[in-house]
Amino acid sequence: MSAPAPLLLTMGDVAGVGPEILVQAFVSGQAQGAVVLGDVPAMRRAADVVGGGAVVVPVDGFDGLAALPAGAVPVLQVTGLPANLSQVPFGHIDARAGAAAAACIREAVRRVRAGDGRAIVTAPIHKEALSAAGVAFPGHTEMLQALSVDPGQPLPPVRMMLANDELRTVLVTIHLSLRRAIDAVTFDAVCETIRIADASVRQFGVVRPRIAVAGLNPHAGEGGLFGDEELRVIGPAVEAARAQGIDASGPFAPDTVFMRARNVPGHPGEFDVVVAMTHDHGLIPVKYLGVEQGVNVTLGLPFVRTSPDHGTAFDLAGTGRADPASLMAAVRMARVLAG
Amino acid sequence: MSAPAPLLLTMGDVAGVGPEILVQAFVSGQAQGAVVLGDVPAMRRAADVVGGGAVVVPVDGFDGLAALPAGAVPVLQVTGLPANLSQVPFGHIDARAGAAAAACIREAVRRVRAGDGRAIVTAPIHKEALSAAGVAFPGHTEMLQALSVDPGQPLPPVRMMLANDELRTVLVTIHLSLRRAIDAVTFDAVCETIRIADASVRQFGVVRPRIAVAGLNPHAGEGGLFGDEELRVIGPAVEAARAQGIDASGPFAPDTVFMRARNVPGHPGEFDVVVAMTHDHGLIPVKYLGVEQGVNVTLGLPFVRTSPDHGTAFDLAGTGRADPASLMAAVRMARVLAG
Repeated sequence: MSAPAPLLLTMGDVAGVGPEILVQAFVSGQAQGAVVLGDVPAMRRAADVVGGGAVVVPVDGFDGLAALPAGAVPVLQVTGLPANLSQVPFGHIDARAGAAAAACIREAVRRVRAGDGRAIVTAPIHKEALSAAGVAFPGHTEMLQALSVDPGQPLPPVRMMLANDELRTVLVTIHLSLRRAIDAVTFDAVCETIRIADASVRQFGVVRPRIAVAGLNPHAGEGGLFGDEELRVIGPAVEAARAQGIDASGPFAPDTVFMRARNVPGHPGEFDVVVAMTHDHGLIPVKYLGVEQGVNVTLGLPFVRTSPDHGTAFDLAGTGRADPASLMAAVRMARVLAG
Repeated sequence: MSAPAPLLLTMGDVAGVGPEILVQAFVSGQAQGAVVLGDVPAMRRAADVVGGGAVVVPVDGFDGLAALPAGAVPVLQVTGLPANLSQVPFGHIDARAGAAAAACIREAVRRVRAGDGRAIVTAPIHKEALSAAGVAFPGHTEMLQALSVDPGQPLPPVRMMLANDELRTVLVTIHLSLRRAIDAVTFDAVCETIRIADASVRQFGVVRPRIAVAGLNPHAGEGGLFGDEELRVIGPAVEAARAQGIDASGPFAPDTVFMRARNVPGHPGEFDVVVAMTHDHGLIPVKYLGVEQGVNVTLGLPFVRTSPDHGTAFDLAGTGRADPASLMAAVRMARVLAG
């Protein structure tokens, strides 16, 4: 290739806000040098919604992307998409939109694995649209995990990180009931999460990440009075990580560890990342100041993948009023992580 | 009484920061009209630590409190305290400090129940010092609950509220392991919490409080996929509260409901209070911006009780560097709630 491999932006569900926030990112200049993998007519519809001089530029290769002016939205037409995607109604579950979203993700992974893309930023998809299209994966993470290796190979362990300008958290468990999440907080799962968190925060340029491990129970169990997972499972996992040279500490009381890690002017964070045992312990503090600031990063894949921290927002699709801030933050973070 | 009953401030553990943050509150003028129930020599030691013109003024009644100048710290000597409290070393667990802290709380409750006090603001105590003194209660809440009724009477149901300038949360469960907390999320417990939250937020001057009820599981259970407590327990409790005319709604996804309730300039909160199922779901967002802003309110007692959202901070005791902001916020909130 004559040009460096670009960031690959998947179009997402065309009934949702994905195409229009992608257009907004190019209008703002923040996506310059990246390319959308999607459907040219559907992206043209999004450009019409956004206005502001946005123009879709069909491309069939990646040369010259960096020279495009702000407002130009380079789109590589993915082959084999359903017909008439630009006529899929906004705001409704549609199997065609689900099928197209999945095809764009497959194309992005194929290219990034071939070295023909530097990282993937995914626009929002809708779980039920995927399902309506017969796609067997409940969401991005599982699909990317499966596509990241050849058929028959073991799947890499992946973890979800949520990050904004002041806080990063990595989750030991995600989409399980709280009861099942407690069962899933095992020594191996915590060790693996600490290891993945350490490796990933190094990608942010932190030489020796300070990793805080949150407890599971109130006051991190208060010495066993309010639960023993800290003594039986989490504490030993922290020790094991330290024995491997990782700067992990804890378990800390969940209610104050995120505050301690928060990094803002005048309040330097004590830690570079917090490992949280449950979905909501980790996501409540990252989302508290507004989802428009949060970025979702899938850790453990053999390539960089980020996404905005929100869904298809069907209620806003087609209005041009969706906030592209989280997508733009995801683009910036993908650039940082991909080096 | 010739003067209106004052706010009663308990001295807390003399080995901790309680006495000195009380002095700071009077130096700032924010505690004017209130009175400390404690030990005069121990409070004099705290005034020496703080400096800045602080002078302890022993009082034996409550007339004339409002006329004292800023910096005057009125202290009513509680009788029967251990001797030489002003010589208890800072920063260590001491049975004398525990016994004195408990005696001050007893005196405050006795007075407020007799109408000789408008509300109680408690300075921090240490659980292990209480225990060393043979006091059978693990903390303030349980002690206040027991003292709030005559012996043999049923204890009132109480709940913990944490509040700062932008968010209020009321907790269904507090000091239990997460496993036991899930078991304690019953229909009755959620209903009672919603009822108590409604009554208490009215005391803040909200005519018809908008109460958000958080779910327990990720995505509030995603329709039963990640746990069924929302369908079996929490949803029906919300419906029962609505049938009683309470403006409750939910269950909402825990990771975004606190963000939605957050009330700051430019971001009006959608709700006046959030009912949270677990200790950490509720406390993580309130504490995230800093414990110096949080106030703990015990709801359900027959009197108003607030406290700062931190402990004895043994590492700072005697240095004069403890931040009195949370105590001062607790004093302001007690004034509002006591009307």
